[in-house]
Amino acid sequence: MTSFNDIIAAAERIKPFIHRTPVLGSTQINQITAATIFFKCENFQKVGAFKMRGASNAIAMLNNHQLDKGVATHSSGNFAQALALAAKLRGIPAYIVMPENSSQVKFNAVRSYNGNIIPCKPNLQARESTLNEIVQKTGATFLHPYNNHNVIAGQGTATLELLSEINNLDMIIAPLGGGGLLSGTLIAAKGFNDKIIVYGAEPIAADDGFRSFKAGKIIPSVNPNTIADGLLTSLGDLTFPIIQKYCDDILTVDENSIISAMKLIWERMKIIIEPSSAVPLAAVMENPDLFKDKTIGIIISGGNVDLQKLPF
Amino acid sequence: MTSFNDIIAAAERIKPFIHRTPVLGSTQINQITAATIFFKCENFQKVGAFKMRGASNAIAMLNNHQLDKGVATHSSGNFAQALALAAKLRGIPAYIVMPENSSQVKFNAVRSYNGNIIPCKPNLQARESTLNEIVQKTGATFLHPYNNHNVIAGQGTATLELLSEINNLDMIIAPLGGGGLLSGTLIAAKGFNDKIIVYGAEPIAADDGFRSFKAGKIIPSVNPNTIADGLLTSLGDLTFPIIQKYCDDILTVDENSIISAMKLIWERMKIIIEPSSAVPLAAVMENPDLFKDKTIGIIISGGNVDLQKLPF
Repeated sequence: MTSFNDIIAAAERIKPFIHRTPVLGSTQINQITAATIFFKCENFQKVGAFKMRGASNAIAMLNNHQLDKGVATHSSGNFAQALALAAKLRGIPAYIVMPENSSQVKFNAVRSYNGNIIPCKPNLQARESTLNEIVQKTGATFLHPYNNHNVIAGQGTATLELLSEINNLDMIIAPLGGGGLLSGTLIAAKGFNDKIIVYGAEPIAADDGFRSFKAGKIIPSVNPNTIADGLLTSLGDLTFPIIQKYCDDILTVDENSIISAMKLIWERMKIIIEPSSAVPLAAVMENPDLFKDKTIGIIISGGNVDLQKLPF
Repeated sequence: MTSFNDIIAAAERIKPFIHRTPVLGSTQINQITAATIFFKCENFQKVGAFKMRGASNAIAMLNNHQLDKGVATHSSGNFAQALALAAKLRGIPAYIVMPENSSQVKFNAVRSYNGNIIPCKPNLQARESTLNEIVQKTGATFLHPYNNHNVIAGQGTATLELLSEINNLDMIIAPLGGGGLLSGTLIAAKGFNDKIIVYGAEPIAADDGFRSFKAGKIIPSVNPNTIADGLLTSLGDLTFPIIQKYCDDILTVDENSIISAMKLIWERMKIIIEPSSAVPLAAVMENPDLFKDKTIGIIISGGNVDLQKLPF
């Protein structure tokens, strides 16, 4: 299992390749929530998302032979861009398997970081077989977007930075998709101070994390459909045990809450966040008693939105 | 005329009432423009705009008798909110004359800061006569949104902060509407180092500043119509002489450039800016030779946009 020391080592290792992102607050949002919230703004991270941390750390852990052959993954989201850029910064090739129906914006983003795109049919089987083919052919190392210890350790560095600035947090909330960010957050927070309460926040419409946590076993999502499109993925066999062991609870929120919280952050904080990033604030707003008078850290996971398709 | 020392004094005076806003950059925008740009982010200022600086300074300069009676202005824009909040923070009344056809969003914003709204017919004559009535009735001090030396001195403090962080700027560009921000920027920049070149940037569709500057006399706008709705106002008899004396040039930009520059800042920097704030970057992009290899400061004037009416 990823350790606190792995995260400390990752932070040092990836420093040259990532931004140290700002921690912001909003008097007005504090008034509305009756809490004191510090937002760790990974929307300002390179490629616009925390995924740059995990991708950079996973690449930094490869040996020279592996580096020569490059890296590969399947992703249509922020990890695709992150791996492409992290590979580019190390001067190695990245092979990104993407569903052929991904948006042009996403193809362009990966291409702009010199990623080699391999389109596949839009289903899990095609994705995995295409990835296997490319790994066979190129010898590239497959890096899973979240079910990978070095990726998890990288994601935890966001919380390490947050706690180095604000060390009196009562609670931290991270959005929950595949569990890479939440796992890293848990290990970083509990390693820093085991009294810090850590919640995962998840859309009801993609609540495999909540159901798995309560059932004590992984229950994958079946056709989840939420505006928080970064949280559609199901837990992995590396992330689930960490969440099971350390997480205080998983809070689920409905779609309207996500949109309201997203709009509130846009309007009051003047920062662009993607819907997935609004899920933790939505959880605060749906559970006022739980968070009243608390000092809370929230990980803003990313800011990649299609400006043509805003929900408000 | 407002002096450099007035701005230094204003900065000290308003410190408790404003935010020191961040200065941000974007590697990608630097690559696109072949320049190094530092954005002074007044979209993160209280009320979401630099206007909070001038309003706070003008109120701080009132004597006790004047403070008792409160302040009044006519504005449907950011100065209305700024004066309302600045007055609230000093515990004095603010009377805001607003055209009755202003959007509900704007009424609500002023009301949320406890401003007393006095609606008037949407024309200049009604605005002025309504304002005169309220001043007569209440004894409040009229504070003009930009044609006021204490307001100008307050607006200049944004540039003072920018230069205290980045002291090697070749150029500074500020958007030009009524000229309050540009006047303050000019006095702050030239007072700091008279070698810094300062440009005003203005929509072609509201180019009274450009035409006045070239003609050597104030030529008011006639029904200007631009997406940069913070820049519809015409120069004042206090702002024009400052601009005439110190400004290196006024650059005009078309509407498409404004929208492109705004979108670029939203997408690459993940910050929300209003169209008026995009005008300086639009000027850089329309004049690549002028700005190539230069280190440039840009004042991002505000972030108050109607999310229901985005131009992209």
